[in-house]
Amino acid sequence: MNPVVVSASLILYLIAICQGSGTDIALDAKATLLHRIDSLNLLIYTCLLTLTVLTIWVFKHRRVSWLHETGLAVIYGLIVGAIIRYAGSTNQVTYIDAHPDADTKYNLSVPPDIVRFHFPDKIQISSGEAPVPNKTYAYSFRGEIVNVEQNEIDLKATFDPEIFFNIILPPIIFHAGYCLKRKYFFRNLGAILTFAMVGTALSALVIGSLMYGCVQLMPASLAASFTFLDTLYFGALISPTDPLTVLAIFSQLKVDVNLYAMIFGESVLNDAVALVLSGAIQNYEKRYSVDGGFEITAFLAAIGDFIGIFSLSLLVGALIGCLTALMTKFTHVRDWPLLESALFVLTSYGAFLIAEVFELTGVVAVLFCGICQAHYTYNNLSADSRNRTKQLFELLNFLAENFIFTYIGVSMFTFPKHHFDPWFIIAGFLTSMLGRAVNIYPLSFLLNLGRKPPIPMNFQHMLFFSGLRGAMSFALAIRNTVSEARQAMLTTTSLIVIATVVLQGGAATHALAYLRIPTGQGQNDENEALPYRDVRSDTPHGNGDGGGEKARLARLWGAVDSKLLKPLLTHARPPLTETLPAFLRPLGRILTTTRQYTQSENSLRRTDSDSDLCIDEPQPVPTTIDPQLPYNIRNGYGNV
Amino acid sequence: MNPVVVSASLILYLIAICQGSGTDIALDAKATLLHRIDSLNLLIYTCLLTLTVLTIWVFKHRRVSWLHETGLAVIYGLIVGAIIRYAGSTNQVTYIDAHPDADTKYNLSVPPDIVRFHFPDKIQISSGEAPVPNKTYAYSFRGEIVNVEQNEIDLKATFDPEIFFNIILPPIIFHAGYCLKRKYFFRNLGAILTFAMVGTALSALVIGSLMYGCVQLMPASLAASFTFLDTLYFGALISPTDPLTVLAIFSQLKVDVNLYAMIFGESVLNDAVALVLSGAIQNYEKRYSVDGGFEITAFLAAIGDFIGIFSLSLLVGALIGCLTALMTKFTHVRDWPLLESALFVLTSYGAFLIAEVFELTGVVAVLFCGICQAHYTYNNLSADSRNRTKQLFELLNFLAENFIFTYIGVSMFTFPKHHFDPWFIIAGFLTSMLGRAVNIYPLSFLLNLGRKPPIPMNFQHMLFFSGLRGAMSFALAIRNTVSEARQAMLTTTSLIVIATVVLQGGAATHALAYLRIPTGQGQNDENEALPYRDVRSDTPHGNGDGGGEKARLARLWGAVDSKLLKPLLTHARPPLTETLPAFLRPLGRILTTTRQYTQSENSLRRTDSDSDLCIDEPQPVPTTIDPQLPYNIRNGYGNV
Repeated sequence: MNPVVVSASLILYLIAICQGSGTDIALDAKATLLHRIDSLNLLIYTCLLTLTVLTIWVFKHRRVSWLHETGLAVIYGLIVGAIIRYAGSTNQVTYIDAHPDADTKYNLSVPPDIVRFHFPDKIQISSGEAPVPNKTYAYSFRGEIVNVEQNEIDLKATFDPEIFFNIILPPIIFHAGYCLKRKYFFRNLGAILTFAMVGTALSALVIGSLMYGCVQLMPASLAASFTFLDTLYFGALISPTDPLTVLAIFSQLKVDVNLYAMIFGESVLNDAVALVLSGAIQNYEKRYSVDGGFEITAFLAAIGDFIGIFSLSLLVGALIGCLTALMTKFTHVRDWPLLESALFVLTSYGAFLIAEVFELTGVVAVLFCGICQAHYTYNNLSADSRNRTKQLFELLNFLAENFIFTYIGVSMFTFPKHHFDPWFIIAGFLTSMLGRAVNIYPLSFLLNLGRKPPIPMNFQHMLFFSGLRGAMSFALAIRNTVSEARQAMLTTTSLIVIATVVLQGGAATHALAYLRIPTGQGQNDENEALPYRDVRSDTPHGNGDGGGEKARLARLWGAVDSKLLKPLLTHARPPLTETLPAFLRPLGRILTTTRQYTQSENSLRRTDSDSDLCIDEPQPVPTTIDPQLPYNIRNGYGNV
Repeated sequence: MNPVVVSASLILYLIAICQGSGTDIALDAKATLLHRIDSLNLLIYTCLLTLTVLTIWVFKHRRVSWLHETGLAVIYGLIVGAIIRYAGSTNQVTYIDAHPDADTKYNLSVPPDIVRFHFPDKIQISSGEAPVPNKTYAYSFRGEIVNVEQNEIDLKATFDPEIFFNIILPPIIFHAGYCLKRKYFFRNLGAILTFAMVGTALSALVIGSLMYGCVQLMPASLAASFTFLDTLYFGALISPTDPLTVLAIFSQLKVDVNLYAMIFGESVLNDAVALVLSGAIQNYEKRYSVDGGFEITAFLAAIGDFIGIFSLSLLVGALIGCLTALMTKFTHVRDWPLLESALFVLTSYGAFLIAEVFELTGVVAVLFCGICQAHYTYNNLSADSRNRTKQLFELLNFLAENFIFTYIGVSMFTFPKHHFDPWFIIAGFLTSMLGRAVNIYPLSFLLNLGRKPPIPMNFQHMLFFSGLRGAMSFALAIRNTVSEARQAMLTTTSLIVIATVVLQGGAATHALAYLRIPTGQGQNDENEALPYRDVRSDTPHGNGDGGGEKARLARLWGAVDSKLLKPLLTHARPPLTETLPAFLRPLGRILTTTRQYTQSENSLRRTDSDSDLCIDEPQPVPTTIDPQLPYNIRNGYGNV
């Protein structure tokens, strides 16, 4: 803690104690002090972020490429964390041991929410006065104390882990969904889903098993504290990738759009997958926490959990997105951009909250809400609101991301529940690399059997190399740090995140050059991290992600989307009156706006954020660039 | 609480207890439940705000003028609060009484931060098993329990009062400073400062004294619980006005700019004054809390507190604002609008935090930071950042304001510490009206002695009528609700806020018509609540706010601002090389940018957000409208 605060606090305490009027004033002083410490903590992070912003500017200005902004945030965090830790420190938290009154009626096995603590004032204020009457204070539940001897619960520059899940992650994930390049995402959907779903589960399983093997070879004390479920949980939390750094470099260098889409899409989805997967493992653990062994019913229930929670969360998010689209289509709220933007923000956060209230995964809901908002609602918004929402979420995303990376750095020194175990750390580094390899290479091989054009070898290497770990891994690791096993996981995860972000992130440009991945492709209006508009320069055929079955499904979805959902939810043409079967036409007429009839096809096309949902759509695409020009999809793979 | 949650929680508890594995799982379930209740609370407010936004749209669409959006938010809040209160409710908070261990070494008069509670599991899980070992839990300090019998600490849809001061108020106040129409503000500075500083203090004193008289006439139980300081504190918290509703109507109807400036400027400043004033009263109370009597040294110290804290906070805010201006002037961070906006947001919030860390008033700091950011930094920003910061703070302000009014409504029913005392409530309504009258009429009379043109009678009536109470009063009232006196104050304040916002706000349009205040004046680019640009249609002379002395001061400040501060902090001309004395020219050359030399006067003028700081500036003003046209300042007062 800042020495100023410490000395100020001591003075306050002394004043409070000497002044004679007893506990009230001392309590007020303590409340003021706590408030100031909170403010100081926030100020530290605000200053760190300001410093990061200024340094990023210097780096961008001088075209420094060997360190990226997230790496920078981590390094600043580490430095400040070390200063906070080793500069004058006094532990200001006071303790007292207590036990229940003898005549208590409380009769539950769960500890109570509130302890009403009868505190006798032990200091006689002055010899003449009567003793101050005992007072009763409310104390609220905080957590279990595992090791009573080790009594240092430290308040230094740390926040409640729940803050990450409720405040920091939602805007990041929403922004990822909102600025997803849906055209290339859907074009590479097969590969993305394979890597994100199958790959993440596979990676979690491989890392979990290998780690379990490793801890068995280690000293007995360590081996005893890890069950297979613990290591599996570690596998699940270390599997999601966070390729911010790599993608920022990709968009600077204009790397091939399909590679970009694969890495971005995979990382967006595998965050969601890992979150649901770790929840399923925890549920499994809860059901059979006695020995941590394997039981087939519980395993099936866990898989059921995973599928159920994932798809219900997806549904909630998508429904809220569509609801917002309907609200913006059928009201004229677009005449007041401020109201419209407020509505947009509120419903998007509402999607997160609804999912959380029903014990689903808010992050998954907010991701798919973001995708739907971009695909449908965005088209109904006024120009002002489009701009405003994009810029707002871009800013929130920037601040939240840099905050989390700064926090990873600071907490490395200040978070009290770190447990450094060299063997576990080394094993963690090796297995997480192996897990990434198991995700990419075998699955790419399998995908290439049915995919044309195949994923070339240098792309596979780059996919492997982009396996940086980030915000989601850290947030999952810091959520539960009760046992020693979990603390070792947190430490290892923090170190893996720091190492990959700083080292791999810094080396990404060189890796691109070394792997001879083509850069400088003309993505015409590609702004860094802004929703994607109108990149329609590829041939409308000759690429796909799988065999006939999958393509048929994609085509079906494309037809539903363009004939039913888009006309229903946006002002897009053709109107429902043309696409619905005859007996539903009256309904279609009600759901079609005047604007939909009067507006020309072209003007709508232009306003759409990313209108080409799907490959092989039979619709006439108003290409402004000749589809036979050299810049087509094969260009991206041309160097193989 | 929602019945769904209640039943779900019971099921969870039952499952947890029946399942046999004891406390761990039950604790996890409880944590999950608490998280869901938090999410549900947030969801309630999110839905309420969404509803408010949609209804505002309907009202704007149908041009409803008898109810404004803040009134609407309050009414929706009241309805939902009543539903939450009377729909199925179970108090889920569990208690246990505890006392310190006999052998404890703790030796302070302050209760400890953490109670380490040794909790014996009272339920034998099954007859065969050994008793589960006792566990120790950490409980953190929450507050004093005054009445041990009345043990209902309720968690229904309420938040920590500190949230208002740390999260809700800062963006509202910053936005007020950022979009302050500085030209008219400074033109009416004398009147605004008189009303805000002298008037608020006078009003607090009058209300405090009258209320003290009133409570003495009331039943003895009530009289005993109020000291003079209590009623004075009430006077301070009920004095600030919150004219959101009135001002929104003013800008719709384009009411006279000087009246607008007076009401807006006064309400912005009196929020800050009231906050510092109430802090000074509390400090006074702390110093002499024994009998609440009057002591001259403590009184002087309180006045010293007031002046010192106000001016230091002002200084902190202004310095941070100027620092941001320097950073944006001398770096090229404007080439990356995202970085620039992030920097702007971070430094502005930093001003708030720095003031709080040094025990000053963050709200005052953030207000003056906002004014400086608008006056200096805004000119250095890129067009993208200008737009982005304006829109961001507009949106934050909108959401925060509507949240606080919704919360006032909901908490009327759900906040557990209301104390309805009809006499106190009636007295509160009457004295707060009187206090407003004492603020406006005598001070206007005094101001009119030295002011030309004088403030006409119908303007005075409108100033009186605009005395709505709002967010700041409520936030101050809910901050401390320990004693019964404070609870009665909270209830009265809530009712006054609700009544004035709904009734006075609804009647504002009629009041304007009844008082024959001219409307429909051509403020050319006056967007509701956006920073003000280039309204320079008045004659440059013939108005001022006082005698020679004040005008000279204003002129001096104007000269310093245009010759030293603007050239130093922005790219404005004339550059420092022309305005500084000869021996400082080399320094001036360092501090002048190339842009400053090369850019023409006009292009800068155009980009300035509100360039006319001061009356009677000798600079040539590039008027686009003939200064002799009928629309001049006397027009506003023409109907008298």
